[in-house]
Amino acid sequence: MTCFESDYIAGAHPQVLQRLMETNLETLPGYGADKYCENAKDKIRAAIGLEQADVEFIAGGTQTNAIVISTMLSDFEGVIAADTGHINAHEAGAIEYTGHKVLALPHKNGRIEPETLEKYLSAFYADESREHMVFPGMVYLSHPTEYGTLYSKKDLKAISEICGRYGVLLYLDGARLGYGLMSRETDLTIADIARACDVFYIGGTKVGALCGEAVVFTKNNRPRHFMTSVKKRGALLAKGRLLGVQFDALFTNDLYFRISKHAIDMAESMKELFVSRGLRFFINSYTNQQFVILENDFLKKLSEKVGFSVWEPYDKDHTVVRFATSWSTTDDDLAALKRALESV
Amino acid sequence: MTCFESDYIAGAHPQVLQRLMETNLETLPGYGADKYCENAKDKIRAAIGLEQADVEFIAGGTQTNAIVISTMLSDFEGVIAADTGHINAHEAGAIEYTGHKVLALPHKNGRIEPETLEKYLSAFYADESREHMVFPGMVYLSHPTEYGTLYSKKDLKAISEICGRYGVLLYLDGARLGYGLMSRETDLTIADIARACDVFYIGGTKVGALCGEAVVFTKNNRPRHFMTSVKKRGALLAKGRLLGVQFDALFTNDLYFRISKHAIDMAESMKELFVSRGLRFFINSYTNQQFVILENDFLKKLSEKVGFSVWEPYDKDHTVVRFATSWSTTDDDLAALKRALESV
Amino acid sequence: MTCFESDYIAGAHPQVLQRLMETNLETLPGYGADKYCENAKDKIRAAIGLEQADVEFIAGGTQTNAIVISTMLSDFEGVIAADTGHINAHEAGAIEYTGHKVLALPHKNGRIEPETLEKYLSAFYADESREHMVFPGMVYLSHPTEYGTLYSKKDLKAISEICGRYGVLLYLDGARLGYGLMSRETDLTIADIARACDVFYIGGTKVGALCGEAVVFTKNNRPRHFMTSVKKRGALLAKGRLLGVQFDALFTNDLYFRISKHAIDMAESMKELFVSRGLRFFINSYTNQQFVILENDFLKKLSEKVGFSVWEPYDKDHTVVRFATSWSTTDDDLAALKRALESV
Amino acid sequence: MTCFESDYIAGAHPQVLQRLMETNLETLPGYGADKYCENAKDKIRAAIGLEQADVEFIAGGTQTNAIVISTMLSDFEGVIAADTGHINAHEAGAIEYTGHKVLALPHKNGRIEPETLEKYLSAFYADESREHMVFPGMVYLSHPTEYGTLYSKKDLKAISEICGRYGVLLYLDGARLGYGLMSRETDLTIADIARACDVFYIGGTKVGALCGEAVVFTKNNRPRHFMTSVKKRGALLAKGRLLGVQFDALFTNDLYFRISKHAIDMAESMKELFVSRGLRFFINSYTNQQFVILENDFLKKLSEKVGFSVWEPYDKDHTVVRFATSWSTTDDDLAALKRALESV
Repeated sequence: MTCFESDYIAGAHPQVLQRLMETNLETLPGYGADKYCENAKDKIRAAIGLEQADVEFIAGGTQTNAIVISTMLSDFEGVIAADTGHINAHEAGAIEYTGHKVLALPHKNGRIEPETLEKYLSAFYADESREHMVFPGMVYLSHPTEYGTLYSKKDLKAISEICGRYGVLLYLDGARLGYGLMSRETDLTIADIARACDVFYIGGTKVGALCGEAVVFTKNNRPRHFMTSVKKRGALLAKGRLLGVQFDALFTNDLYFRISKHAIDMAESMKELFVSRGLRFFINSYTNQQFVILENDFLKKLSEKVGFSVWEPYDKDHTVVRFATSWSTTDDDLAALKRALESV
Repeated sequence: MTCFESDYIAGAHPQVLQRLMETNLETLPGYGADKYCENAKDKIRAAIGLEQADVEFIAGGTQTNAIVISTMLSDFEGVIAADTGHINAHEAGAIEYTGHKVLALPHKNGRIEPETLEKYLSAFYADESREHMVFPGMVYLSHPTEYGTLYSKKDLKAISEICGRYGVLLYLDGARLGYGLMSRETDLTIADIARACDVFYIGGTKVGALCGEAVVFTKNNRPRHFMTSVKKRGALLAKGRLLGVQFDALFTNDLYFRISKHAIDMAESMKELFVSRGLRFFINSYTNQQFVILENDFLKKLSEKVGFSVWEPYDKDHTVVRFATSWSTTDDDLAALKRALESV
Repeated sequence: MTCFESDYIAGAHPQVLQRLMETNLETLPGYGADKYCENAKDKIRAAIGLEQADVEFIAGGTQTNAIVISTMLSDFEGVIAADTGHINAHEAGAIEYTGHKVLALPHKNGRIEPETLEKYLSAFYADESREHMVFPGMVYLSHPTEYGTLYSKKDLKAISEICGRYGVLLYLDGARLGYGLMSRETDLTIADIARACDVFYIGGTKVGALCGEAVVFTKNNRPRHFMTSVKKRGALLAKGRLLGVQFDALFTNDLYFRISKHAIDMAESMKELFVSRGLRFFINSYTNQQFVILENDFLKKLSEKVGFSVWEPYDKDHTVVRFATSWSTTDDDLAALKRALESV
Repeated sequence: MTCFESDYIAGAHPQVLQRLMETNLETLPGYGADKYCENAKDKIRAAIGLEQADVEFIAGGTQTNAIVISTMLSDFEGVIAADTGHINAHEAGAIEYTGHKVLALPHKNGRIEPETLEKYLSAFYADESREHMVFPGMVYLSHPTEYGTLYSKKDLKAISEICGRYGVLLYLDGARLGYGLMSRETDLTIADIARACDVFYIGGTKVGALCGEAVVFTKNNRPRHFMTSVKKRGALLAKGRLLGVQFDALFTNDLYFRISKHAIDMAESMKELFVSRGLRFFINSYTNQQFVILENDFLKKLSEKVGFSVWEPYDKDHTVVRFATSWSTTDDDLAALKRALESV
């Protein structure tokens, strides 16, 4: 059955897997000291236009969030996130497991608004009992957000400026970064993100890799003995080549961006199918995740023909569902969706 | 200067200190194995009407919360609290330090409403992605709440019933329990609390002791090797007698309840002073903490004559402030407050 | 340059990679709910002869140790290990990061002797101050050990019996399990291990996989909501298929055992080369790791011709070095080693 | 029955309790912001001859160790201790609970020898796999040690010099510091300790207080927002006066040193009683703890007449026991011990 359930339903992009095949029997040192990791780091530095950036590869997204946040915060600090942020809602308490609180702020379409952040920080520093509270040490943004929305260049700069003013680090979770960068409605480049953030990650798992995320420290601020801290958290792969080779492939000839663009093209076509069918959107997304409001009976029938995710109840008769495209979505998939929508 | 800043501005109740004097040179075993700890436990069991209860003494409130919560939750669980709850707002991340998330629910006057809880739990168990989320393992209530408000017997029973239905433990933070029990507007007895909760604590620090809280496990559910877990958290006092003697004194001849009643009487008189002066209340509290809205200029002048706590901004011209009475508040203190109010 | 530095210098066994290719574009659910994970679990259950075993896949060894140990221990417990054990010496404090102490016992050739264990446990339970100490909750063995040595059937049974008597869990780290099982000098089968242990893991990373370890819970004792605890530790892969497909391949037609046997054959031939050259062994190993004592000058020259690991100083003129074979070692590799040894 | 079981069998020194009485009804701010805390800090700074030292009060010893170690170590670091050190053996894993490993070194009479430390550190930094290991970030010494022994001025300087050379902090646990400083066989002053260490604590619980330890940061190196970190660990007392008043009393007119000297005088007299009775010492201690080897039958009979602690088995017929004096030991206690020794 054709499936739009998530953006991790297929394996790796064929060119990525091809490189794993070609390099498979080469003798390489472990723990990320191999030449493919080095190549990949160089290519990423070039892509973001930041020669001095430190790049590190981690196997998964939750792991990356927990490692970055816990190694960069001070003991007395927590991390600010939208209440809908992945680290607050869907990571099983992985941040708290490191001993740090997630300080949840109200979101707007999945985003933290600069005003909300400013208000929170100024109230915190005006509070006389703040020594009894968790200090805000970092702001966590996801881009695209969990609702497929995006920060504008203006808003990201505003948030970055606020962070700088209060001495708070800015961290951007780019699990789906490619799909954000290739959106038709964004004015943010990866270079803008590198300039605005202290640290961010370029997601591989959802954008062409079997697994893997590339963390970028932009300001000579990689924590000391980071490799030891990664190992301490159980996240150091013996065969670091698995991540290096994949990211080397993804950042060769713009593969990462080209396959992301494909997913966006598919999403935009999919959107048109929903519009033609007269369906309502829960949120206006310009990335690879589309949130549609379905009447419950319609939902049930449609789910017998194509795969998608149930998101949350809308009202007693309707439900919000999510359709995700990815680099692996095909024209055939869309055709099947079209037929399914027409037949229900 | 007369001071209503908090309920921990004085030392211990004289009868408590007297007992420390009388027993000071006795040779006693360490770590809570002394006879005064035993006596105090027996008296507390009698006071709550639960012969099989396990009682343990811990030096402070944040420590008690962190120990109880972290030793009773399973690995995959977090604790539900009102977003205004002490563990969520003013304990510097002490619960997260133990690796568990605080699941914040919207409050009403500092309380969690049974409906809010029910809704949260039913939504959690209806969510198909719940294996990626923190499971609710315990509900944390403070009684009185941080706003001086109280749960009714009906609401506590409703919450207890919901907890039972979902397999969630019920824990009540009684840092100011005496002041709640002696309120003129409560229908809850300590026996009711013992029946409704899986675990609760009777606060000593704010009710007559130099330090110390008495944790009561009501259902033969004290965690195994609890003493070792307490030590692991750095909270095992070598001279456990310090807590045992104090609670022995507090639960002899109803001292705990008598001094709590005194604080309530003082609070009710104080309330009348505010009413006479035409001041507005931020919240209607029947316990020892009173929250008053002051015009900022008035606040400044009053603060030169009596001590109180600034709580939070109300609007651009007004601020919420807190006045607390305690067992140590005197008629002279109230007279001084009266004079101060009249002179501003 | 020919390299014996470790058993993770190559990618995956070609048949493993082949299966990743063949299944790459299939649509599969995430987080380990795919059919390849199920198939692999069934095949592992068959291989160990334990129908009711619970099998779970984790990406790496340190991660597996941290997860298994921290989810199975009680709060007041630690894990016993040989002082040379991987968790005690070379995992950057990953166990302590979970809040549990490693209780180190003296080793004999990398092994814990049953007598040492019995003596430790009986002394612990005879100690009147044990409530102030970390309770032993689990015994951690590595098999093969970090020195390439093995437990005999008799010793493993003795340790298992002691654990049972003291209520301590038995956990076996099988990072190199295949190389232990295929040793010419072992009387232990994988079924023996499954019977003796409460939990153990079958190492993939060092035995043919790109990454991945298969944890086996043998006594219906998988921790509740294990998937949530795995996610909480950042270790839940979105594309669980990566592990499932690999283990499915490894446990099809005994591939795991056949490639392990190959590594052992290579190691035995390598051993003969060392003997012919008149070199001394630091330890008598019958598995894929061989520890040789080299004169320092000899070491320096040899290291220019073949790769190996420096282990530890032996005396002022000699050093212990390690040569590891694996499934990827070839006759050509051995021929190159022969030439290198002869030319120095 | 006369009791030498430990140095925490009595309450507080009468002059300490007296000060608690006298100040009891004073209105004072909470959380250590009161004038008695300030006075006590000034007096301690004067006593150690270090004007810029930061002094902080914590309720208990295990708590102090956990807080100091975990707030001063970096993420990738652990703490070196003698294997007999309190943090390694008798604190229920409190250090590991903070996520840091205790790196145990072999002891000599409870002490770490400078040579042992040097050897460990040089081997660590020569080890090529050290990035996979826990970095040594701090050395923990107890003075007096758990065996009542002391560091010489020469050894402490040597250890301090080694620490400095390797960039490792030096921390001294002075739970019984007074009894070490007043020993007749020490050449170390408290000023020497303040110069040699980065941080140390002056024990109150075992030297005249009901509870409380004074941590001294000697090099403008108190962790930032230390109060918040203390609260996060549940260790911030609301009534900080309890600690301030006690230390103010202890450091007024040298009370701390005078009562410590008394305990030493008592211990030396006790020693003579053991010598007269022909008993053997397990270790030659010049502080308040005396370790004697008793024949098991003798032990049993003696234990019916005076209290002491069973330490550890010596051989099959003998046991090591501990007798502790303290500020509260009296001539009558010694007379009772003499009678007991003579009558058995």
